[in-house]
Amino acid sequence: MKTIKVNLGERSYDIVIGRGILKLLPAYLKKLGAGSDAYIITNPFIRDKYARPIANILKKNRFALRFRIIPDSEKSKSIATAMSILKDIAAYDDKKRAIFIIAIGGGVTGDLSGFVASLYKRGIPYIQIPTTLLAQVDSSIGGKTAVDLKQGKNLVGAFYQPRLVFSDTSTLESLTLRQLRSGFAEVIKYAVIKDGKLFAYLEKNYPDILTLKMQPLESIVESCARIKADIIQRDEMEKKSIRTMLNFGHTIGHAIEAAANYKGYNHGEAIALGMVAASNISLKLGLISDVTAQRIEGLIKKIGLPVRIKKIPAEAIIKAHYRDKKFIGSKNRFVLINGIGKVSIVENVPLGIIKEVLQNLAG
Amino acid sequence: MKTIKVNLGERSYDIVIGRGILKLLPAYLKKLGAGSDAYIITNPFIRDKYARPIANILKKNRFALRFRIIPDSEKSKSIATAMSILKDIAAYDDKKRAIFIIAIGGGVTGDLSGFVASLYKRGIPYIQIPTTLLAQVDSSIGGKTAVDLKQGKNLVGAFYQPRLVFSDTSTLESLTLRQLRSGFAEVIKYAVIKDGKLFAYLEKNYPDILTLKMQPLESIVESCARIKADIIQRDEMEKKSIRTMLNFGHTIGHAIEAAANYKGYNHGEAIALGMVAASNISLKLGLISDVTAQRIEGLIKKIGLPVRIKKIPAEAIIKAHYRDKKFIGSKNRFVLINGIGKVSIVENVPLGIIKEVLQNLAG
Repeated sequence: MKTIKVNLGERSYDIVIGRGILKLLPAYLKKLGAGSDAYIITNPFIRDKYARPIANILKKNRFALRFRIIPDSEKSKSIATAMSILKDIAAYDDKKRAIFIIAIGGGVTGDLSGFVASLYKRGIPYIQIPTTLLAQVDSSIGGKTAVDLKQGKNLVGAFYQPRLVFSDTSTLESLTLRQLRSGFAEVIKYAVIKDGKLFAYLEKNYPDILTLKMQPLESIVESCARIKADIIQRDEMEKKSIRTMLNFGHTIGHAIEAAANYKGYNHGEAIALGMVAASNISLKLGLISDVTAQRIEGLIKKIGLPVRIKKIPAEAIIKAHYRDKKFIGSKNRFVLINGIGKVSIVENVPLGIIKEVLQNLAG
Repeated sequence: MKTIKVNLGERSYDIVIGRGILKLLPAYLKKLGAGSDAYIITNPFIRDKYARPIANILKKNRFALRFRIIPDSEKSKSIATAMSILKDIAAYDDKKRAIFIIAIGGGVTGDLSGFVASLYKRGIPYIQIPTTLLAQVDSSIGGKTAVDLKQGKNLVGAFYQPRLVFSDTSTLESLTLRQLRSGFAEVIKYAVIKDGKLFAYLEKNYPDILTLKMQPLESIVESCARIKADIIQRDEMEKKSIRTMLNFGHTIGHAIEAAANYKGYNHGEAIALGMVAASNISLKLGLISDVTAQRIEGLIKKIGLPVRIKKIPAEAIIKAHYRDKKFIGSKNRFVLINGIGKVSIVENVPLGIIKEVLQNLAG
């Protein structure tokens, strides 16, 4: 079991990572003083597999609780769903309650739960129990909470930190291979932007991770969580262009998701394609060598993630790209690389280069 | 013209107070770099009187702008209205925009606008241009943004500071006497919790303020803004029981508003009654003398604010009181006083005393 501290002054919290640690949750919650009444947000699949056992442990430890089940779909990240949960919490909240939220599930559950927690009474405590690789290495950490609008993903949200992230790696056994690969895309992202050693480790050990060997899994979750904690500590609100580096592969990735109307590619797959694109743009701008670009594409391919964009025209991706919320004014801004482990943020990448790269990736 | 700085590190901002200062707004906005595209939220009355002239000045200074008119009613502080505005901002937001929000109006406009600003893209800049006494001395400062739920006022919201508060005291000339009195209730609150000299000044000069003499008006707006800025600086998120003192009169006041279903008494009138109640509870607990309680009730009465509760049974107020969002667990918590200018926060005030005080106030 490993504990990583996210140092943010009054908003500091621990990320606890380990196998079979869920039984320790009540002790952590009591130490935190998060509250006596758990409002558990989860999805139908996770409810039976993990949320019920957690609920039983909590009940034995005299926590009161209420469940809210939401579909495990991006569609749940809506203002309407958030509003409905807020009303339900207000209905649950009589004079005796000290309510806190526990999010058990993947990125959708975590983002939505954190958003609701940030809003109720201007902020109540929330706990992240991520059960997907993507959520354990990325979305559960750092307090980016949000819901979507028609015009774009995560357009409505808040920066609001959890009080605890509790990552039980044994929950990853419930993932499908496709879900695991999707999370792996974010792991590769961390390696490319910050950690050449991790990248080499992944190149060597990826089969162990894809076959759910627990030791390497714990190790990569820990490595990624450490990188993310470090970045969040230095730029919590994404004001200094430090946190921005976490968007490596996401600029084009988000545009691909949007252009495909959030069908076809899942988040990790779109990010994999976005990373190939960002790496090729870096190559075109002379920032990296051909060998480096090939190593990145090679690892992504070995994992079983896509490296060619199917059925989405370059024009549609570029159009969606200009809708991205990262845009302010008329500049585009890309997270590129100077090498594996070295990020470079570049503004005003010529449209011609973006187009050419995307057209070359059309599979 | 006076400028008061609210020191909150990265979230610091100025409160600018003066007569006829609106023409200076473009220069301030440019200095701030808040954005190029103003999304102006206002109400129908204020639109013609102040928002249009402001818009004309902005246009002359090459700002783009879009108007959103919301009814000047507590009903506008709903998630539904906020959602509708967020969608409209997203529709307005094409690639060329750097949007910021300007709230022109009273507390409803300001609270709702700040809430929306906190959520869009996880936070865009907003500017407060308060046009009521209540908003100039209180609600525009400090970043408490919110909308209401059926279960209570301000149950859904965020702490999110404005980038500038621009209080033109000449806008107060558009207030009805009843609106002016309502704002006066908050002015008395500041005097009672923090400033014995201000209290004495009000006792002496209230007729000048009620007849809109500009010099005393500016002076009290400045005094109150200074007190609030000082409190916010020491306890921005209301975690240290310092900001709590601003709720003097609000515990019972909010309960009166809720018990009356937000009809009959306006906010300031309810707070006036709440202050009389809090002062009488302080008296019953032996914290203040009869003379002090009489001075407070005396000033409230002279202003023309109510000091007796009409047609709302004590039981209904107590029931609403137990719904208040300040409640966590089963404790009640009152902001009481040890004297004029001296606050004392008291937990677990016996229900019998609250009831007795409320019954004595039944008019």
